[in-house]
Amino acid sequence: MQAVVITEPGGPEVLQVQERTIPFLGKDEVLITVHAAGVNRPDVFQRRGNYPAPVGTVADIPGLEVAGVVVAVGEDCRSFEAGDRVMALVAGGGYAQYVAVDCGSCIRIPDNLSFTEAAGMPETLFTVWHNVFERGRLTRGERFLVHGGAGGIGSTAIQLAHLFAAEVFTTVGGTDKVTFVRSLGASHIVNYKESDFEESWNSGSMDVILDSIGGTYFEKNINLLAEEGRLVVINAMQGAKVELNLIKMMQKRIHLTGSTLRNRSLEFKKQLADAISQNVLPLIETGAYKTPIAEVFSYKDARYAHELMESRAFSGKIILAF
Amino acid sequence: MQAVVITEPGGPEVLQVQERTIPFLGKDEVLITVHAAGVNRPDVFQRRGNYPAPVGTVADIPGLEVAGVVVAVGEDCRSFEAGDRVMALVAGGGYAQYVAVDCGSCIRIPDNLSFTEAAGMPETLFTVWHNVFERGRLTRGERFLVHGGAGGIGSTAIQLAHLFAAEVFTTVGGTDKVTFVRSLGASHIVNYKESDFEESWNSGSMDVILDSIGGTYFEKNINLLAEEGRLVVINAMQGAKVELNLIKMMQKRIHLTGSTLRNRSLEFKKQLADAISQNVLPLIETGAYKTPIAEVFSYKDARYAHELMESRAFSGKIILAF
Repeated sequence: MQAVVITEPGGPEVLQVQERTIPFLGKDEVLITVHAAGVNRPDVFQRRGNYPAPVGTVADIPGLEVAGVVVAVGEDCRSFEAGDRVMALVAGGGYAQYVAVDCGSCIRIPDNLSFTEAAGMPETLFTVWHNVFERGRLTRGERFLVHGGAGGIGSTAIQLAHLFAAEVFTTVGGTDKVTFVRSLGASHIVNYKESDFEESWNSGSMDVILDSIGGTYFEKNINLLAEEGRLVVINAMQGAKVELNLIKMMQKRIHLTGSTLRNRSLEFKKQLADAISQNVLPLIETGAYKTPIAEVFSYKDARYAHELMESRAFSGKIILAF
Repeated sequence: MQAVVITEPGGPEVLQVQERTIPFLGKDEVLITVHAAGVNRPDVFQRRGNYPAPVGTVADIPGLEVAGVVVAVGEDCRSFEAGDRVMALVAGGGYAQYVAVDCGSCIRIPDNLSFTEAAGMPETLFTVWHNVFERGRLTRGERFLVHGGAGGIGSTAIQLAHLFAAEVFTTVGGTDKVTFVRSLGASHIVNYKESDFEESWNSGSMDVILDSIGGTYFEKNINLLAEEGRLVVINAMQGAKVELNLIKMMQKRIHLTGSTLRNRSLEFKKQLADAISQNVLPLIETGAYKTPIAEVFSYKDARYAHELMESRAFSGKIILAF
């Protein structure tokens, strides 16, 4: 099979297509012929050498989500059969013509959805469902803030929070992105290049904040949280070391937590896939929830897909087609 | 009535007995003739002028918990009648011969319990039940660490965690306190004057930590927390501003939170009193849960009670008798 390989740590140009062996199939796994794969920010960190793949995973083929057709089924997998269209969360190795993946990490693709759209869903759906609804316990009528609303995580979080009847606040980095995030369901939007988001909104007004920025955003997030508000951290792109005022945390009785998805158990991912199938799949089938696509590249042009991701000059998901 | 009054911000000597009017009785309140009142660390902060009483409360009479007999009942209070023996959480004003308190903040005193013992219970029971079992979600078989095990909060937390089948870790400031906290149910004890608690235990081993120290304890607590572990902060005596590593928080998926009790709604306190009546009162009636008493002072000697508290040379609760 052909695969996009990180030939050495470095810039987008280190991504090259190489011939590889089709992966072995475990007894709990399905083998998928990949039609499309999503491109995510951790793929970029991995390519630069900053975010090593977990032990036991393909170390030099990036890619955390795919969509395709099941071509072979392990003996202990009961939930899918050959010919099924599935999208899947994978722990790496997604930029390839075939991947073997645990049954529990697959979700069936509704008939109305293309492989291209489906390939952009698993990573952000798993991340957002867990962190916003399970960890952050967002409920109807609450106020929800997500930073970077025009990105993959942001556009998923805005749509789901809006569909589950939260009031959605977001930050974006450009005037052109304001219309985009409004169309997804955000009703309060700050362009961080023009205004300070903390000053734009009332302090103590947010029930749940999903943040992947960290750094100077941390204290602003804390100030914006309401009593019993929840801050869920899923990355710290601007810096991991922040100052926390414990008395402020006590007085507002806020909750700080965070998580990473990639190193979680297969059992956890299976439960999460079940929760998404139950809660989000119906919204995909009716067309209420969509993957906004920024651009689709051939896998042979993966380096250009990474260049676009690093430019930040896009809205929605970047997809590789196989 | 006689009351112990903070005549001006300062040392223990500013506490003086003065004549005051018996408080008015609200329609949701009971008037209690106080037989004993507990002394707590926030009383000391209030006396020094560092911890102002919430708006609407008696500002110059300290005291957060009392035990006594109901002598009058407001028209909307259905749960108690004159003659009932009760312990109560009060928002201030406890160092006095009479207090008026919301019905919902009272808990009946079992027959086997003296006023002296009962007076030492409400503040630590309300604080520990909420922060360890509700906020911290401690469950059977989990590992629980509380700092300052020989103090009021510490001795309550050790007993309850042990009675609810957690494995209890604690720190104390003296060899003489080791035996005391072991008798309460702690099985892993570090004298912080001799050893570093972080080095004494395995990193990543604690499910719930209750901390009132903050400062340099914060990072050690974070390192000791297990995956999905919970740190609940109820004070920051060594310092409120700490450094948090967001990536560490994400990788271990830990939860940080905290609370203050005093400024909470009456409805919250009522629900908490109900939960304590249901879960802890049976353990008090059987004698499984006790208030360890450090020393009982006449209310006329309140200044000496505060001197003892500030010396830290005691184990258990300090009580004023009326």
